Amino acid sequence: MCSLPVPREPLRRVAVTGGTHGNEMSGVYLARHWLRAPGELQRPSFSAVPVLANPEATAACRRYVGRDLNRSFTSTFLTARATPDDPYEVTRARELNQLLGPKASGRAFDFVLDLHNTTANMGTCLIAEAPHNVFAMHLCRHLQLQSPELPCRVFLYQMPGEESFTVDSVAKNGMALELGPQPQGVLRADLFSRMRSLVAAALDFIELFNQGTAFDAFEMEAYRTVSRVDFPRTQDGDLAGTVHPQLQDRDFEPLQPGAPIFQLFSGEDVFFEGESTVYPVFINEAAYYEKGIAFIQSEKLMFSVPALPALPPAPTPGP
Amino acid sequence: MCSLPVPREPLRRVAVTGGTHGNEMSGVYLARHWLRAPGELQRPSFSAVPVLANPEATAACRRYVGRDLNRSFTSTFLTARATPDDPYEVTRARELNQLLGPKASGRAFDFVLDLHNTTANMGTCLIAEAPHNVFAMHLCRHLQLQSPELPCRVFLYQMPGEESFTVDSVAKNGMALELGPQPQGVLRADLFSRMRSLVAAALDFIELFNQGTAFDAFEMEAYRTVSRVDFPRTQDGDLAGTVHPQLQDRDFEPLQPGAPIFQLFSGEDVFFEGESTVYPVFINEAAYYEKGIAFIQSEKLMFSVPALPALPPAPTPGP
Repeated sequence: MCSLPVPREPLRRVAVTGGTHGNEMSGVYLARHWLRAPGELQRPSFSAVPVLANPEATAACRRYVGRDLNRSFTSTFLTARATPDDPYEVTRARELNQLLGPKASGRAFDFVLDLHNTTANMGTCLIAEAPHNVFAMHLCRHLQLQSPELPCRVFLYQMPGEESFTVDSVAKNGMALELGPQPQGVLRADLFSRMRSLVAAALDFIELFNQGTAFDAFEMEAYRTVSRVDFPRTQDGDLAGTVHPQLQDRDFEPLQPGAPIFQLFSGEDVFFEGESTVYPVFINEAAYYEKGIAFIQSEKLMFSVPALPALPPAPTPGP
Repeated sequence: MCSLPVPREPLRRVAVTGGTHGNEMSGVYLARHWLRAPGELQRPSFSAVPVLANPEATAACRRYVGRDLNRSFTSTFLTARATPDDPYEVTRARELNQLLGPKASGRAFDFVLDLHNTTANMGTCLIAEAPHNVFAMHLCRHLQLQSPELPCRVFLYQMPGEESFTVDSVAKNGMALELGPQPQGVLRADLFSRMRSLVAAALDFIELFNQGTAFDAFEMEAYRTVSRVDFPRTQDGDLAGTVHPQLQDRDFEPLQPGAPIFQLFSGEDVFFEGESTVYPVFINEAAYYEKGIAFIQSEKLMFSVPALPALPPAPTPGP
């Protein structure tokens, strides 16, 4: 498996973005809190910058006001000429690309950690682009070891050949935290505390790396998108049923061929017709109804993550 | 306790309203389903009319587009002269008042059952205006007896002296079903089925009454609003904390003086300073953030509900 080059210099430009979706309240209120009290994001070798990513959607307590910000960081949106008709989030994506990028440039931030909630029962989920990002995989491993009693799954969202489109993709490196279940517009204290601890641990990991710590190779288990499954629908496109009670809340559990996946309003069940076991995630996520996604089918994979070598010692000042 | 007069004629004009709040999906999809297949709402003596109460908010998957429809059925809104600047829901309230009312008139529908979801852990909750509504109290009792193994609480929402303002207040009689927890914008199969069963049982009760069944007096336990409690806030009005983990999800459980109610972002706890036990409900309901309500304090009360007499036999046709 080909790997992204690992950083050869300390990560000094780090950002934590919350409110990318304006109704995912853990990140919204963490970002707001840190903007008032940024000390919590300071480490000896760097200070992470808190960013409220989508202020207008946050003010409206909606996922977005014009279009999904976290699908707007593609070269098409970032490089097209601005027009007065651009959706708010396209304009905001360009601003964030100036602040934290430009994407794929040497001037981009070293790392962006983006904070999300889901209505699905996904617990603590770490979302990275792909397994070849060795630095992000080591960070995931570090976070998993912080609370070994809690499941903390790694989800690789990118489908083969897909261009990256998320907020954290503007930086040289990044990932997202996805905590659930939490309804849109609700701030649960338990998830708020959990996300706060995870961010602290992520910054601690970057600090360890910056200070010259090496990290051993390990075997990683992760889930990777295979395909997306829509709800059953009537001829005019309306819902004809919803997620079956036997699938609801069972994110990351194996789904066997023949198991019920939907319950129709007519009372009938719809069964999974796949030929092998899959692992559904984002089951019945509120924001995905409009995207035509009842759940995402993922596969579980194991792969080797190579060692993350220590940074070379900082050069001593010349004569 | 003074009582509303009980019906002396069969209830023939009955409506079931869903989507009063456009992101409370159980009622939205039940109303849509029944509009396509109304047979489920038919009984020998009447056919209940399904109504999608707030079509624009439902299309947008938002609670409302202009103002909360379920707070718009006051005489001020219903009788003021229409203007082009009226919020959509004020116009819609007037339409519904024409369709199902007019409120407080002899031409109004006999009964409106309004369907709601909450993000709070309230299970099955039956919401009535006040204990003096003997017919509604008997209906609540009937619903409680359908599934005695499930808690099914009665909540009396009206504060003393408050004018009624809800959709079901346009009819001669009515009540609301409030099922949770369900995130806004999510349709859970378990709550959908539960609400469908409750509506069927409510219509069965009306049918029994119409057919001349009498119902004995009984003792009712219910919860009644005492006051509303806001979140802790910063000087500029932003949240300074959220519902304490020890209170979250504990709707209808006793809250003792001195128990923690909020966890501040600073890490400190806020304790309940009341002088006696209360029963919090609507704890951390998403829609109530903007209303400045973190939870509602209720009191538990027991009261006697008098018998509901059988209808007099239908007059035999004259010579």
